[in-house]
Amino acid sequence: MAQLIADRRDIDFVLHEVLNVEELSRHERFSEFNRKTVDMVVSEARNFAVKEMIPTWKEGDDQGCKFEAGKVIIPESFHKLYQLFNDGEWLGMNEDPEWGGQGMPKSVSSAASEYFNGANFPFMMYPALTHGAGKLVEEFGTPEQKNTYLKNLYTGKWTGTMLLTEAGAGSDVGALETTARKNADGTYSITGSKIFISGGDHELVENIIHPVLARIEGAPAGTKGISLFLVPKYRVNADGSIGAFNDVICTGIEHKMGIHGNATCSLTLGGSGQCIGTLLGEENKGMKAMFVMMNEARLLVGMQGYACATTAYQYAVNYAKERIQGANLLKPNEGGVPIIQHPDVRRQLLTMKSYVEAMRTLLYFIGYCNDMIATSEDQAVRDKYQGLIEILTPVAKGYVTDKAFEVCNHAIQVYGGYGFIEEYPVAQLMRDCRITMIYEGTNGIQAMDLLGRKLGMNKGAVVMDLMGEMKKTIRAAKEHDVLAPYTEKVGVALEKLGETAQHLGKTASSDKVLTAFAHAYPFLEVTGDAIMAWLLLWRATVAAAKQGSAKSKDIPFYDGIIKSLEFFTSSVLPVTMGKMEAIKATNGACVEISEDSFNG
Amino acid sequence: MAQLIADRRDIDFVLHEVLNVEELSRHERFSEFNRKTVDMVVSEARNFAVKEMIPTWKEGDDQGCKFEAGKVIIPESFHKLYQLFNDGEWLGMNEDPEWGGQGMPKSVSSAASEYFNGANFPFMMYPALTHGAGKLVEEFGTPEQKNTYLKNLYTGKWTGTMLLTEAGAGSDVGALETTARKNADGTYSITGSKIFISGGDHELVENIIHPVLARIEGAPAGTKGISLFLVPKYRVNADGSIGAFNDVICTGIEHKMGIHGNATCSLTLGGSGQCIGTLLGEENKGMKAMFVMMNEARLLVGMQGYACATTAYQYAVNYAKERIQGANLLKPNEGGVPIIQHPDVRRQLLTMKSYVEAMRTLLYFIGYCNDMIATSEDQAVRDKYQGLIEILTPVAKGYVTDKAFEVCNHAIQVYGGYGFIEEYPVAQLMRDCRITMIYEGTNGIQAMDLLGRKLGMNKGAVVMDLMGEMKKTIRAAKEHDVLAPYTEKVGVALEKLGETAQHLGKTASSDKVLTAFAHAYPFLEVTGDAIMAWLLLWRATVAAAKQGSAKSKDIPFYDGIIKSLEFFTSSVLPVTMGKMEAIKATNGACVEISEDSFNG
Repeated sequence: MAQLIADRRDIDFVLHEVLNVEELSRHERFSEFNRKTVDMVVSEARNFAVKEMIPTWKEGDDQGCKFEAGKVIIPESFHKLYQLFNDGEWLGMNEDPEWGGQGMPKSVSSAASEYFNGANFPFMMYPALTHGAGKLVEEFGTPEQKNTYLKNLYTGKWTGTMLLTEAGAGSDVGALETTARKNADGTYSITGSKIFISGGDHELVENIIHPVLARIEGAPAGTKGISLFLVPKYRVNADGSIGAFNDVICTGIEHKMGIHGNATCSLTLGGSGQCIGTLLGEENKGMKAMFVMMNEARLLVGMQGYACATTAYQYAVNYAKERIQGANLLKPNEGGVPIIQHPDVRRQLLTMKSYVEAMRTLLYFIGYCNDMIATSEDQAVRDKYQGLIEILTPVAKGYVTDKAFEVCNHAIQVYGGYGFIEEYPVAQLMRDCRITMIYEGTNGIQAMDLLGRKLGMNKGAVVMDLMGEMKKTIRAAKEHDVLAPYTEKVGVALEKLGETAQHLGKTASSDKVLTAFAHAYPFLEVTGDAIMAWLLLWRATVAAAKQGSAKSKDIPFYDGIIKSLEFFTSSVLPVTMGKMEAIKATNGACVEISEDSFNG
Repeated sequence: MAQLIADRRDIDFVLHEVLNVEELSRHERFSEFNRKTVDMVVSEARNFAVKEMIPTWKEGDDQGCKFEAGKVIIPESFHKLYQLFNDGEWLGMNEDPEWGGQGMPKSVSSAASEYFNGANFPFMMYPALTHGAGKLVEEFGTPEQKNTYLKNLYTGKWTGTMLLTEAGAGSDVGALETTARKNADGTYSITGSKIFISGGDHELVENIIHPVLARIEGAPAGTKGISLFLVPKYRVNADGSIGAFNDVICTGIEHKMGIHGNATCSLTLGGSGQCIGTLLGEENKGMKAMFVMMNEARLLVGMQGYACATTAYQYAVNYAKERIQGANLLKPNEGGVPIIQHPDVRRQLLTMKSYVEAMRTLLYFIGYCNDMIATSEDQAVRDKYQGLIEILTPVAKGYVTDKAFEVCNHAIQVYGGYGFIEEYPVAQLMRDCRITMIYEGTNGIQAMDLLGRKLGMNKGAVVMDLMGEMKKTIRAAKEHDVLAPYTEKVGVALEKLGETAQHLGKTASSDKVLTAFAHAYPFLEVTGDAIMAWLLLWRATVAAAKQGSAKSKDIPFYDGIIKSLEFFTSSVLPVTMGKMEAIKATNGACVEISEDSFNG
């Protein structure tokens, strides 16, 4: 079976033809990242993903993780892979060279991330969470904390996690019960139990660093009384060597539907009263710190889900071109043909294609917004791009993972009976993908974030900036007659999205707040659809400009980009319009129905 | 954890208040099935499902099936359960008492089937396929074949299967390569390899009877040259005792995403030239015979998928009422509440509820159509109900299993992180459910069946009969002012569905046939939506008539039925209208795009 992950041609298209990332190298910060370097990075990432990562993916699923005699055993092959990943210094792609990073633009590292997560996202969670923990230390740590932990995290010598969830505190983080008691030496004794801790325990490295949310004794209830602590599995001596066990005990691992290769642990902290942590940031400001990490984590989850989709799409197209089954409808007597000739298979493939392309462009664009912030001196420009990241985050997490799951689901259907068989890759892709709709805030919570926080952010200025970007694309598209019918449809949809947003925002501030929030998720859906349409139009505008002078091998590629737009605006956007009608009607049935009426 | 499957109150509502199944007992054939007997049957089925079947469901998933030393080992607990199931004579619920059956109306057995499949559908495949094989013998067998096999199948002493698929012949059955050579004694020597055979081998019973599709040497290519054979695992001696091994060898079992408890086998027939079969029915008429069975099998698959959904819904409602997480949006300072108070959870639950109720009504109604055929002397009435079954079958299989999968997916989301953990039931329900969208003809094939065969059946008379039923409901609904806004919406949607069907049917007979068939699946979707709306309206009409005089405990139940209609017509139908717009536009992008454009 060919080992496929992502479409390199389309990755190059987004990086170089849509976003022109080479322009970033004009700025000192990214001066090393000229076209040649960027291409080399992407090629290296692809080679590493194909040669080293893919072979461990299914094995990791089959072996899973085991909990034996108090120890967590992760898939055998992950040990060597982890070493190779660190040898390649991939963990710190975007980090400041000061901390051992490569200082790469985030738009560019998005491509590497697509390959890595597409190849083995359960494995990738170990370095990704390590990176997240490192970010917290970098942003909120004291010089001592940084010296103790940061380099060891960013080089992957130690791994990191994120300890939020408890049995009674999932979506409602403020309900947590883990406590911290201040000791005479300024450290804190931590007591509590955490669940669903990805990479919470294993023997991959000599130490694991846990950022832990806990409540200092006497602190206010709810999120206002939550502080963040740094709790290592083994204490670290003054000389940096590994010290005593820090009373962080794994009590079990979860048996999950997917991502079997990643250990999801229950941890008990301070069961023997010997768990010591140091405060990270300020007392009672833990949630704020956590949100810094959470926003990045949400974008990561979007990438994880998306990566399943891009891989599933590649497999499905490849399979559909090779699998012979059934005659062409127009030639019923000429025997079996590749199933890509069947209209319903094509419908599914083009559905997958248009979503995958638009989602890729969205995620890379968000990386690009980060790069614009990193390279701009102008505060207004920085604010604008920061706002775009903020409003696009619930879409990149909540909408993208939902659509990614649908794409994986289509891939199974394209494979037919083989799709249900675990020897083929698509079943696992769907199982792995499913968690991305849940963790780091369920997609319902992403929808509430969009409606409740992002829509009114900066008095609506963020929405206006996003609309401004969209209108810029429409103006550019109008230069191309070939795009005219689609451009018009995108324009009409954006107009209607604006009305829908205004209506729903108003309803959310009225006494119909519950009914408004019952439509938060559909609103996330239509917003996502509109953003997909915008990005497909942007892509098609670039393609249309190049079509005339394209090399012959690029002609079907550019044509395919315009076909994605045509399909999406003709077959998906009318459905989006219907969804907006439903939101504008804002029916209250699901709020009004009595609890007793749900079952007899 | 409460063990939940289906909502008994709603089952009774469909049987007794919507369909009035007691009326069937006026006919001699069903004279035993008065209200009391029907209720007793449903209660017995529920008790058996809850007490005996549910406990084996997760165990069956965990243990799965094993292939060791050439033998297939199915989950241990299935052996006792299978015995109990046969002791209860459940396999022959609908069969003629002449063959040991209970002669139950199909509407009534639908309720039992919902409980059984909701409790453990991977187990249920063993008796269900046995039943299907028995039906083939009953309809097409010689007296000798009937005497040899029928009673042993219908009592579950032996099990049955269905051998269609080969590695190169899945959706395209006509491509099969298994051959049959006629022997001097009138039997046939069978040679070939079959895959994806559910229950193809195991040690549950002493013999397994395989109906096998094969091509007699010299027969025409394609489906026209396919014959059906009866091939036992062990030959049967003249006195009915088990004879020599019949050279049917299991070469392996599949490792699947779900239904782990059911053994999916690869079988080699006649590897040593010793596989003997007898012709079932006529030479080269195998496909026709198989379709008799297939239609019933498709309805069974609809029931399997639906049963996952009804169970998932019950679990989700129960969980949402018990799980405390987050404050009520209107009372942010009053601490955690059951998540059923959160609008987005309610939106998901009411989505699930309305689909589950409508799907239940659809499947029971199809059972009822069978009962009407069984009890009517009037050929016109029989034809009408046969036509309704035919046109509703692709919806009951293709649409229902898709929506059932969505319902299971919602259940996972309602459970949040716990939904992804295999200790909770909803992950397995989704994994089990996924196969129902594929086997017995993928849902894409169901869509082609609807557009290509059913829409024009009997010169459109079947469609007109269905529309007639729908209009009858609308007329009845108009008697209830409380339903007026919803009745109107259903009417508008049906009107538009008629236009859409006409347009697409016309396009399918034009030179745009490929483009038309690229819209077959969306057309199945909108047809299904409209049928859901019709059935919800029918249900609401019954509820509205009873609301005034209802007992107090029934008031929330009837109100909930009307709320399902309100929700569906306000939040789902507008999306359906958008989908119909897209179908009417009949865009050809996915047909026109070049194969080279799908990836770069």
